[in-house]
Amino acid sequence: MSLQQLSAAKSFDGVQAVYRHASSATGTDMTFSMFVPAHEAGETLAVVWFLSGLTCTHANVTEKGEFRAACAKHRLIFVAPDTSPRGDGVPDDPDSAYDLGLGAGFYVDATEPPWAANYRMWSYVTEELPELLFAHFPADAKRQGIIGHSMGGHGALTVGLRHPDRFRSVSAFAPIVAPSQVPWGQKALGNYLGPDRTAWRAHDAVALIEDGARLPELLVDQGADDPFLEKELRPDLLREACAGAGIDLRLNLRPGYDHSYYFISTFMADHLAWHAERLK
Amino acid sequence: MSLQQLSAAKSFDGVQAVYRHASSATGTDMTFSMFVPAHEAGETLAVVWFLSGLTCTHANVTEKGEFRAACAKHRLIFVAPDTSPRGDGVPDDPDSAYDLGLGAGFYVDATEPPWAANYRMWSYVTEELPELLFAHFPADAKRQGIIGHSMGGHGALTVGLRHPDRFRSVSAFAPIVAPSQVPWGQKALGNYLGPDRTAWRAHDAVALIEDGARLPELLVDQGADDPFLEKELRPDLLREACAGAGIDLRLNLRPGYDHSYYFISTFMADHLAWHAERLK
Repeated sequence: MSLQQLSAAKSFDGVQAVYRHASSATGTDMTFSMFVPAHEAGETLAVVWFLSGLTCTHANVTEKGEFRAACAKHRLIFVAPDTSPRGDGVPDDPDSAYDLGLGAGFYVDATEPPWAANYRMWSYVTEELPELLFAHFPADAKRQGIIGHSMGGHGALTVGLRHPDRFRSVSAFAPIVAPSQVPWGQKALGNYLGPDRTAWRAHDAVALIEDGARLPELLVDQGADDPFLEKELRPDLLREACAGAGIDLRLNLRPGYDHSYYFISTFMADHLAWHAERLK
Repeated sequence: MSLQQLSAAKSFDGVQAVYRHASSATGTDMTFSMFVPAHEAGETLAVVWFLSGLTCTHANVTEKGEFRAACAKHRLIFVAPDTSPRGDGVPDDPDSAYDLGLGAGFYVDATEPPWAANYRMWSYVTEELPELLFAHFPADAKRQGIIGHSMGGHGALTVGLRHPDRFRSVSAFAPIVAPSQVPWGQKALGNYLGPDRTAWRAHDAVALIEDGARLPELLVDQGADDPFLEKELRPDLLREACAGAGIDLRLNLRPGYDHSYYFISTFMADHLAWHAERLK
């Protein structure tokens, strides 16, 4: 698999780079960013994946996430994939809405036309990109954590719940916890997976927990002034599901904070310290 | 003077906001960003000004500067002005070059046509915006520091050298230290101030020091792999001037770092700690 480095800059004594590669999962070129802290030759480092939210590319968290200081301190590789396939011929929402199509892959493998050919973000982030990462970079596959924001929080929770042996630590900022029950998720899952809601359950954190998926613990930060809290995010549903399943959920409701990177960056170092503790 | 808040978000327990106001200095609307840390009612806080580089608006450092954690810790207000006037009728470089006109005000009051009517960034950042800041926000005029990057490093050095009683601390990232001697500066000062180079000396840090301006100390960080180092930035000239004038210059040459915010953000917390120590 050929990998093209688009940019690289020294930062916090490590290297923040952006790469592009041809993806067999999506049938398109895909771009991702990666921070690799300073390390010894031959050494491998723990990895934290960051799945981004609606409208984002790899660039949003790379520029605004304020993760490098903590990643350098704890010696964590930080990988940020894009949120959908992009490029000529990739279908988009007919109304160009922000919550379907480009920038809105929802971390599923679409089965419905016109999405099924390219919108295979589940395979991309759980199979193809990890394979590429561990083949090319000093990353330790036995020490992986995953974080996500909003739609990417949904991604982190579902990927984590379905791969409990792969990820030692799973956390989220303002995640969509039950897409089957909220407008963003119903629109996306309906379009990508079709009307049969049984297929949605494998991509719904609350449904996965109801169906028996387990993790020992989860860390979630949620802004109390997030405009999407009650209609789209519904942390109450995750709290209920975790309580019923014996999952130790630490849910921090943060007064005054919204849905933006001004919120995420405030608590990013806390999340990375929490992951680092579990990835030792 | 009327002040419009364009946005505000809680971040690191403070508020990151963006404001717009009609400027009498530039004859345009001007936009700036400001972070105000959590504080007690009635309390005033020290202020650090940040002057940005070519092509930037207030937004670049606001999004990529990673200053809020340190400002919250040290309780510093952080103000980031734009780098030029903007709007209908504001002249730009006829070739739309990035180093003259919009985004390239060079922190001078232009005297030459077509620039003189609007390009009055010296008056804006040294008079009008401070007046507005101290009238509307909990900022302590007796505790001010100033930082800048590249063209904004030039701004911070010249503003600081010409106001030694106002600023207790002056620092820069990759500053243009001697605009009269480098292409960026020669183009900008020639256009804005005209061909008489004696007028340029008040806007050239090295010339100001040669002409007797003094500060007790300066902090400068410079990436050793900065592509503009030898042709445009010339920290060697600042080192010579400071040595001759008895100014205690701490010049940190940082191996491997470039000119970007990946460099700036790495050392931002160091600079803010240095300012905070002097603004106690």
